Amino acid sequence: MRNARIAKLAAAVGLCATAAMPFAAGWANDGAASSVLGDKLPPGYRDWRLISVAREEGKLNDIRAILGNDMAIKAFRDGTLPFQNGTIIARVGWSDDSFPDGNRSFGHPQSFVSGHPKNGVQFMVKDSAKYASTGGWGFAQFDGGKPTAVVQNTCFSCHETVKTRDFVFARYAS
Amino acid sequence: MRNARIAKLAAAVGLCATAAMPFAAGWANDGAASSVLGDKLPPGYRDWRLISVAREEGKLNDIRAILGNDMAIKAFRDGTLPFQNGTIIARVGWSDDSFPDGNRSFGHPQSFVSGHPKNGVQFMVKDSAKYASTGGWGFAQFDGGKPTAVVQNTCFSCHETVKTRDFVFARYAS
Repeated sequence: MRNARIAKLAAAVGLCATAAMPFAAGWANDGAASSVLGDKLPPGYRDWRLISVAREEGKLNDIRAILGNDMAIKAFRDGTLPFQNGTIIARVGWSDDSFPDGNRSFGHPQSFVSGHPKNGVQFMVKDSAKYASTGGWGFAQFDGGKPTAVVQNTCFSCHETVKTRDFVFARYAS
Repeated sequence: MRNARIAKLAAAVGLCATAAMPFAAGWANDGAASSVLGDKLPPGYRDWRLISVAREEGKLNDIRAILGNDMAIKAFRDGTLPFQNGTIIARVGWSDDSFPDGNRSFGHPQSFVSGHPKNGVQFMVKDSAKYASTGGWGFAQFDGGKPTAVVQNTCFSCHETVKTRDFVFARYAS
């Protein structure tokens, strides 16, 4: 029942409690004025290095990249847990589009590429003191460059299922 | 017929004439001794910035990231064609694995993540003089860190279908 409720909520808000960095809410307090990252996307996040790739079927229906700042990448590669304060992990999603150029080369449909931005850009920010009640992680989502009001605790309710990995779903793709 | 032949060959060698950086052969001459990149993977390619993500169904059945060196990223962002000499584009593939942690959160199967390395790591290298007969691009593939003998011209036979994009399938995912 709990999972079903979470899944329903995830679908409703267009987020994902899975593959990569599931839920990623926005505010430390429900409906408060600013994201855990403020009102702006972290500068340069699109240049961060790749942790892994993933996708969601169902209502989310996207393809996504998981990126990390330098602290995140180092921790993944070293296999060090918990992640240190200052770590930020990003999930960038796009529509999972059929790719005509590829299909043409193969002679049948089988190719898919990232299309338009979809399901927001989500972040996990580690600050063990500030977000002590949610495993040390703050969650944020941006849609069209603006923070989205999603409940911090709602995000964490999925992330807490992977407590043994410091609440992070993603694994480094070697 | 031509496409069918290419598709069959692509499947046979575990490569892909699609989504990202389709074919990516190895040698400037069939069966010659060294890859267009030599015998070693380009240092640091896994740290290159993300161009896009993609996937293939069918026999290839993978999920992949397209990465680019600094020249590649700049050209994609600026929308500048042709790509300049020195540009390198990489396609890194993994198995497209069902993700139990995500499925559990949603209450049903819908989540997929990059698993083990699959279908090699492929590169396109721009050198308009050296590879004049193949649109200025050299192609290389590595499996398990070692170059794979695949025919340069075979790769190009798919890439030449996107001549208007300087023979590059991938588009930058904004």
